[in-house]
Amino acid sequence: MTDPRSIIAGVEETHPDVATATTAAAEAFGGYRATDPQARGDFLDAVAAEIEADRETIAAAAVAESHLPAGRITGEIGRTTGQLRMFAEVVRRGDHLGVRIDPAQPAREPLPRADIRQRQVPLGPVAVFGASNFPLAFSTAGGDTASALAAGCPVVVKGHPAHPRTGHLVAQAITRAVEKAGLHPGTFSFLLAGPGEDGIALGQDLVTDPRIKAVGFTGSRGGGLALVAAAAARTEPIPVYAEMSSINPVVVLPGALGEDTTGLAQAYVGSLTLGSGQFCTNPGLLFLPRGESGDAFLTAAGEAVAAATGATMLTSGIATAYTSGAAALRDTAGVRVVGQGEAGEEDAPAPQVVEADALAGVTDEVFGASGVVVRYDDAAELADHLASLEGQLTATVHAADADADAAARLLPVLETKVGRILFNGWPTGVEVGHAMVHGGPFPATSDARGTSVGSLAIERFQRPVAYQDVPAGLLPAAVRDDNPWHLTRRIDGELQLP
Amino acid sequence: MTDPRSIIAGVEETHPDVATATTAAAEAFGGYRATDPQARGDFLDAVAAEIEADRETIAAAAVAESHLPAGRITGEIGRTTGQLRMFAEVVRRGDHLGVRIDPAQPAREPLPRADIRQRQVPLGPVAVFGASNFPLAFSTAGGDTASALAAGCPVVVKGHPAHPRTGHLVAQAITRAVEKAGLHPGTFSFLLAGPGEDGIALGQDLVTDPRIKAVGFTGSRGGGLALVAAAAARTEPIPVYAEMSSINPVVVLPGALGEDTTGLAQAYVGSLTLGSGQFCTNPGLLFLPRGESGDAFLTAAGEAVAAATGATMLTSGIATAYTSGAAALRDTAGVRVVGQGEAGEEDAPAPQVVEADALAGVTDEVFGASGVVVRYDDAAELADHLASLEGQLTATVHAADADADAAARLLPVLETKVGRILFNGWPTGVEVGHAMVHGGPFPATSDARGTSVGSLAIERFQRPVAYQDVPAGLLPAAVRDDNPWHLTRRIDGELQLP
Repeated sequence: MTDPRSIIAGVEETHPDVATATTAAAEAFGGYRATDPQARGDFLDAVAAEIEADRETIAAAAVAESHLPAGRITGEIGRTTGQLRMFAEVVRRGDHLGVRIDPAQPAREPLPRADIRQRQVPLGPVAVFGASNFPLAFSTAGGDTASALAAGCPVVVKGHPAHPRTGHLVAQAITRAVEKAGLHPGTFSFLLAGPGEDGIALGQDLVTDPRIKAVGFTGSRGGGLALVAAAAARTEPIPVYAEMSSINPVVVLPGALGEDTTGLAQAYVGSLTLGSGQFCTNPGLLFLPRGESGDAFLTAAGEAVAAATGATMLTSGIATAYTSGAAALRDTAGVRVVGQGEAGEEDAPAPQVVEADALAGVTDEVFGASGVVVRYDDAAELADHLASLEGQLTATVHAADADADAAARLLPVLETKVGRILFNGWPTGVEVGHAMVHGGPFPATSDARGTSVGSLAIERFQRPVAYQDVPAGLLPAAVRDDNPWHLTRRIDGELQLP
Repeated sequence: MTDPRSIIAGVEETHPDVATATTAAAEAFGGYRATDPQARGDFLDAVAAEIEADRETIAAAAVAESHLPAGRITGEIGRTTGQLRMFAEVVRRGDHLGVRIDPAQPAREPLPRADIRQRQVPLGPVAVFGASNFPLAFSTAGGDTASALAAGCPVVVKGHPAHPRTGHLVAQAITRAVEKAGLHPGTFSFLLAGPGEDGIALGQDLVTDPRIKAVGFTGSRGGGLALVAAAAARTEPIPVYAEMSSINPVVVLPGALGEDTTGLAQAYVGSLTLGSGQFCTNPGLLFLPRGESGDAFLTAAGEAVAAATGATMLTSGIATAYTSGAAALRDTAGVRVVGQGEAGEEDAPAPQVVEADALAGVTDEVFGASGVVVRYDDAAELADHLASLEGQLTATVHAADADADAAARLLPVLETKVGRILFNGWPTGVEVGHAMVHGGPFPATSDARGTSVGSLAIERFQRPVAYQDVPAGLLPAAVRDDNPWHLTRRIDGELQLP
């Protein structure tokens, strides 16, 4: 871990190169995966405590690097530590080990049955690529790192170039927790491309390193697909969990326009412009009934967005991409501007809402506060629109009681398209809990079988192993008859609580 | 389903083409996924009953087409129907739905918490490619089909060219169950390449059809990797569960040679030559201590295999491939023949055991009854051997009490290499149960996160969906407060039995 790679502005430490970090991770794997639930849970709690101990410095760095408001960053630190503590609880409970025991049946005819036991084991060292838009909760110690560490996998993070100092400080906090827990230093490593270094090549090197066994990524579709391709081209292909892009359709049903149309439109614009629209779950597409109520909604939305001012985006590059993407959208045939706000001071382009005659050409994500409204006449036209969409992270339905039948018909369609369905709310704001899904069919993610938020995320970094007639004294603790870890187990197919 | 594609010898019926079958599967999906646990379980039971009703005809076809003994085929029919009934039980119990509920906390500060519920939903139509070596249990109504149907996915099977009539008869049994259950006919389809048709192209067409959402495959490494590549190159990549190749290392520890060396050697050859060695779990590689006891084992193994006669293999092509693979192994530098049996009448090449000085050049699977023995001096040399192996389905350890320390050191190494570890037995014979894993790291399978045998197999064909603040009247039954399906649920992270 002493090989210097880069010294970047504001980060005085040196960082390892890829091979050094992955070699250390592979060395750490054997010991780390053998930690018992209590020790691993304590370590995750310690990571949270170390982040909290340095929270003021970390928050200052994150505000400076991300241009996000201090209150948002403070909340994100709480989310990050809360997430780590949730996984500590999950690990101590041990349900993720998925223990199954089919006891021997020596008298079975025509052949006796062997004793067979199963548990989940960690995949091995995991590479994590953090997001630009959540410098804490989806970054160095974010959900991918927390869930991989919880599963028993060492983690190598590629620090995001938009917030190197924040990443570095969080990495130091994790490293302190590793040291205090007496774990192998390779349990966690942090890589940074310095000025003049090629960060994309660094990421490719990391994903194609044979010691890496899985990848977590949050970012652009192009970036995610490049990692997916690199992982698939390896001699040994590995899973990539890339959370990539989504325009998060919102369906407004007719009845939902009946009560407070202006309030609904203002809430829509509030969600659209929150954090300059820099959320994976930003509501980029809204389906609105044709007719007077819909017109009133659109007028109110136009007024609300016209009154909004852009806030500085995460990076100049993101602001530039938004500006050109938003302009291209306005220039698309059949697209009309409903309302446009003011630009802010620096890298703070104007939010906008546009109306489009058709979906063609308007369904690529414009990362930022740009919303498209598409009108529909009836349930059949709406169903056609939804059926033509790609996979998404979320779908939102605004419905009154009178819309119940229409909503019931929508649900099974939405289930095939998205990872989270919500009613009468807004998709921005992803609760960290046990039931949350932040995932969805391609291209929202590269692997719809997982979620990157919530406790189910741990299962992405595991695989099952069966033990047949292994002598009692050699069995791993998780599958021993005396159940020393007090685990819930599936015995002959039936769950038994401890 | 009326578009004729092929009429092959012994199969009078017509079979649909790819697009007809996948279109029907997509149409069937909405209704089939909505079946409740009782109805879906009853359907799986009915498939088993329909197979049993035609068991004599099916068995005769399978014996004729596979050259496997009648007793083995009878057993395999029982295994196939038992597997279907196990999944019926699993579906009725409903634990695979993975229900999680985080109830709303309206009074939470600083923000109220929404009501969030999660369940697993089926991925969509699944393509299944059966194996040549299990014309029933790993084929048309085998584990992949049973687990995909159990998950709620329509299935399109590509019939194996080595047993078209067996596949056709089993497909008819499934189709009768579909009709009697009143399900959409697209719930199950069976494709066959006729004489002169290109079966490989048919398979590629199936995997690249956009309506197919996952693939199950058992077969060769080349075939599996081709499907993996085709699936990855789709506009929407999909999961491929390919069970491909394994040489299933067996480690004999010194103490295990102490008791009945000859008996152990004979049991080894018995497992090696069982069913002409045509098992995915055939013990193709055995590590043996150097020294006198090891020599005695080798002598006994040589005598046992010399006394064995080859039985007719599944196809002429498989027999030819075995013959050339076995010869190439004998011609490899540093390889000596320990014993060679007699060839049988037709397509029944001789079984063999060879000894190799090193692993280089002898670790490619030779499908059939060919075993390689590699000697070792001590634990360090053994550990080096094991560390150099690719991923495998199984690893077997033969150990006496005196070997406990050595065995304990081996276990964590084997866990990183295989899906199933067994002691003092033989890997051929895979129990169908809840704790079984028939899978393992690449290239044993293309996706180590699943198993193709056992009830965990159902999870391969699902993904999670979250429901946020969905009105009670619109919630799917699985996640309703009144729990009409009596499911085990995770409430705020804690499992609660029904």
